[in-house]
Amino acid sequence: MFNKLKEDVCNANKLLLKYNLVLFNWGNVSQISKDGKYIAIKPSGVDYEKLTPDDIVVVDMNEKIIEGKLKPSVDTKIHIELYKAFSEIKGICHTHSNFATSFAQAGKDISVLGTTHADYFYGDIPCTRALTKKEVENDYEKNTGKVIIETFNSFDYKTLQGVLVKHHGVFTWGQDSKKAILNAVAVEELAKMNYRTLLLNPNSKLPKYILDKHYKRIHGDNAYYGQGGK
Amino acid sequence: MFNKLKEDVCNANKLLLKYNLVLFNWGNVSQISKDGKYIAIKPSGVDYEKLTPDDIVVVDMNEKIIEGKLKPSVDTKIHIELYKAFSEIKGICHTHSNFATSFAQAGKDISVLGTTHADYFYGDIPCTRALTKKEVENDYEKNTGKVIIETFNSFDYKTLQGVLVKHHGVFTWGQDSKKAILNAVAVEELAKMNYRTLLLNPNSKLPKYILDKHYKRIHGDNAYYGQGGK
Amino acid sequence: MFNKLKEDVCNANKLLLKYNLVLFNWGNVSQISKDGKYIAIKPSGVDYEKLTPDDIVVVDMNEKIIEGKLKPSVDTKIHIELYKAFSEIKGICHTHSNFATSFAQAGKDISVLGTTHADYFYGDIPCTRALTKKEVENDYEKNTGKVIIETFNSFDYKTLQGVLVKHHGVFTWGQDSKKAILNAVAVEELAKMNYRTLLLNPNSKLPKYILDKHYKRIHGDNAYYGQGGK
Amino acid sequence: MFNKLKEDVCNANKLLLKYNLVLFNWGNVSQISKDGKYIAIKPSGVDYEKLTPDDIVVVDMNEKIIEGKLKPSVDTKIHIELYKAFSEIKGICHTHSNFATSFAQAGKDISVLGTTHADYFYGDIPCTRALTKKEVENDYEKNTGKVIIETFNSFDYKTLQGVLVKHHGVFTWGQDSKKAILNAVAVEELAKMNYRTLLLNPNSKLPKYILDKHYKRIHGDNAYYGQGGK
Repeated sequence: MFNKLKEDVCNANKLLLKYNLVLFNWGNVSQISKDGKYIAIKPSGVDYEKLTPDDIVVVDMNEKIIEGKLKPSVDTKIHIELYKAFSEIKGICHTHSNFATSFAQAGKDISVLGTTHADYFYGDIPCTRALTKKEVENDYEKNTGKVIIETFNSFDYKTLQGVLVKHHGVFTWGQDSKKAILNAVAVEELAKMNYRTLLLNPNSKLPKYILDKHYKRIHGDNAYYGQGGK
Repeated sequence: MFNKLKEDVCNANKLLLKYNLVLFNWGNVSQISKDGKYIAIKPSGVDYEKLTPDDIVVVDMNEKIIEGKLKPSVDTKIHIELYKAFSEIKGICHTHSNFATSFAQAGKDISVLGTTHADYFYGDIPCTRALTKKEVENDYEKNTGKVIIETFNSFDYKTLQGVLVKHHGVFTWGQDSKKAILNAVAVEELAKMNYRTLLLNPNSKLPKYILDKHYKRIHGDNAYYGQGGK
Repeated sequence: MFNKLKEDVCNANKLLLKYNLVLFNWGNVSQISKDGKYIAIKPSGVDYEKLTPDDIVVVDMNEKIIEGKLKPSVDTKIHIELYKAFSEIKGICHTHSNFATSFAQAGKDISVLGTTHADYFYGDIPCTRALTKKEVENDYEKNTGKVIIETFNSFDYKTLQGVLVKHHGVFTWGQDSKKAILNAVAVEELAKMNYRTLLLNPNSKLPKYILDKHYKRIHGDNAYYGQGGK
Repeated sequence: MFNKLKEDVCNANKLLLKYNLVLFNWGNVSQISKDGKYIAIKPSGVDYEKLTPDDIVVVDMNEKIIEGKLKPSVDTKIHIELYKAFSEIKGICHTHSNFATSFAQAGKDISVLGTTHADYFYGDIPCTRALTKKEVENDYEKNTGKVIIETFNSFDYKTLQGVLVKHHGVFTWGQDSKKAILNAVAVEELAKMNYRTLLLNPNSKLPKYILDKHYKRIHGDNAYYGQGGK
C-alpha cells in the first residue's frame, strides 16, 4: 500500500551514507504521505547498508504502526510534531553530522556569513534552547519537537529549513525526504565553513542586502537561477 | 561550430568534482574562443555528473546566446567583465571551496607564507572589498566583476591568477579553462595551509627574496623548473 | 584449537583499517576465550593487510605463547591486566587515532558535551595520570594496565568502555573484539566533535539529566532504542 | 645499468600519491647507489601518475647526468648535499604535505608530545633557520642542503630522520627511498596530532623518560618490538 513511500524513504536514508552525514546508525529520515496522514520512517537501530524498503515503518499521526514489522525510530515523535506544526513540509532528516553538531553542542547558531549560506537559507540556522529537566524526563521526544517549534515562533520554516537542537544535533526538512537530506548536507558544509571563518575572524558578518540578493535570485518571485521558469 | 570549445569546458567543469572543489553545483567554469568573441560556459543549476558538451552554452560578449538550449550560469556577466579587462586570459573558474571561501567570508587575503604559494602566485591572493548596497541591487553580477577588476588596479593578473570576492568565494583564471581549475585547486590547498599556519603562529611571514626566488625559478625569464626550455 | 578465536581477532584487527583508526601498524586488538584463560592478540609489528588468522598469537594469562609462531604485541601485558581487572569484558582495542590521541597528549578528558556521547558512554572518557619514571622503567606495559585500572577506581568500566592513557593513546573494550573496535570508532568521532565544540565555546557542558536520559534510553533497564526487547 | 635503482625510485615516487603526501608534482624522492656514487631522482615537473622507471634521472655527485633524457628535479643539489653529509642514508624524500608544511611556515618544530612520535623519532623534528638573502640568491638549492646540515650539528640524523625547512616544507631520509617516504608519512601524521594537541593545550610536553622508553623499545640495543631479533 505504501510501497512508493517506503522506497523513497529507504533511498533517502541510504543517501545519508553517500553524503558522509552519519556514522553507524546515527540519523534517520522520514517522509509523509501526500494526504498528510501517514509517515514512513527508518526503523530504530538498523544499519543503512542493510536497509530495504520492507524495513521501513509506516505510522499514523498518533505513532500507531500501520505497516512494518520493526519498531520505528525512537525519534518518531519529533518527526510527528514537526509535520503537524510545519504543514507544508513532506520530508524530515535528522543527523549528528560532526561540524553542525559541534555548533549544537556549543549552543551557537550557524550564522549567515556568506553567499554560500544565503543561496540555501534565509538567515542564521538557529540553535534551540536546552530542554528543561522536566521536558527531558516526561515525553522527551515530543518535547524536542515542541522546542524546535517554539524556536520557529520567530522564524519562517519555509525559508529556513533546518535547526540545531542544543546539545543534540541537526534537523532539516523540505518538500520531500530527498530535499531534507540535501538541506542536511548544506548545513554540514556551512557549519564547516562557519567554523573556519570564525577561527580566522570572530567578527565576520554578512550585510543584509547581500543575503537578500542571493536568497532571492534563487528562491524569490523573480528568481533567475537555474533552468526553471518562475 | 563550437564543438571543441564546448568539450573543453565540459571536461573542465567535471574536473571540479575530481578535485573536490564543489558540492552540488556550486561553481562554474568558462573558456573564451581564440578570437576573444565567444564564451562557452556551464549552464545554470545543472549537476556536473550529468553535464554533456551539448549542455554547454555559448554566448557572445553581450551575453547573447549563440549556441545551446539552456540558460547560462547566473555568473556569466562576471566572466564577461573579467575576459574584457584581463585581455590575455582564456579560462575562468569560480568555486566555493571550503577553506578559501572561509578566508573570503572572514575578509582576509590568503597571504603568501611559504614557497608552496610562491611556486604558483607572485604575492598575496587578495580579498576584494564588499560590494555596496547599490552595487548589489543594480546589476549585481556585472558589479562583482568590476570589484575584482578594481582590486587588480594594484596587482598584475598575469602573475596573480586568482582572487577572493568578499563574503562570496573564489575566482581563478589562466591560459585556458584547465589552468584556471588547477589554480583553483592550488588556492584551496594554500588556504588550508595558511589557515593552519596562522593558528600556529599569527605572525608568520615569507621574506620577499624567497618569494622572488621561487616564483622566478618556475615562471621567470631564466626559469629552470620543469622540462621546458625557455 | 583456537581457530574461531583467531579468526575473530584477525577480522577485528582488519576493521581498524576499514574505520581509518590506524596508520601503518599503530594499534592492536585482542579477544579472550570464553573461559577467560586464553587471549588471542595481534602479533607485534605486522601489517593489517597481510594479517591472516594463522598469524594471531594465543597466550595464557602469564603471557606464555600457547599457539602461534610470531611474537605477540608488545602491549600484551596491558591487555592481560585489563582482562584480569575488568572481569566481564571479552575484547580490547588499542589505537593512536588522531583526534583522541591529541586529547591524550594534551592530558584532557573527552568530556561529555552532547547526546552523541551520551548514547555510547555514561560520562567523560577519562585521561589517566602520566606514569612515573619508575613505572616506565620497570615493567612499563604492566604498569600502563595498572594506571588504567587505578583511573577506573572512580568509574564503572561497564558503562564507560574506554580510556585515554596520558601522552599515549586510546584503549577501548567490550563484550567482544568487534564491540571494542566500535567503541574506538565512537571515541574518535566524539574526540573530533569535542575538539571543535571546545574551539567554538570552551564553556560547553551537557546537563546531567540529558546524559541520564540518552544513556538509559539505549542501555538502561527500560531501554526503548533499537529492535531488541529488554 | 641502473635499472633496479630507477625502478625503486619510480615506485617510491608513486608511493607519495598513495599516502596523499603530494598535490600535483609537489615533491620528489631519490635513492643513492650502494657504492654512494650515483643518485637516481625524479625528473623536474613530471606527474607521478605518468612516471616510468625510464623517466628517472641518474646523476653523479656533481649533478652530471649519467642516465636519462629528462632534467632532474630542481632540488637535486639539496639531495646531493644531504647524501654527502649524512653518510649512512640511502634514500631522501621531499614533500609539501599540508600539516607539516604549516609548521615549517610557522617556523615551529614538531615537538615530541607523545609516544606515537617517540616510536619514530628520538626528539623534536627541528625547523631550520630561514636562509639569508645571499644564500637564496646564490646557489639556493645547495644552501638549502647546507642549512639542514647546519641544523643537524646539534642532532643525530640517524635517530631523527626528518627536518622542516623554514618557509618551505619537509625533508625525510632513511636506509632506502621507501623508508624515507614512510618517515614522511609519519611526520605528516605527527604534525596533524601536534597541531590539534597544541590547540587543546599549548603547554603539552612529553617527559624525557617516556621518550627514551618508547624509542628504545623499537630502536634500542635491547629492542623488543616487532618480529626481528636484534
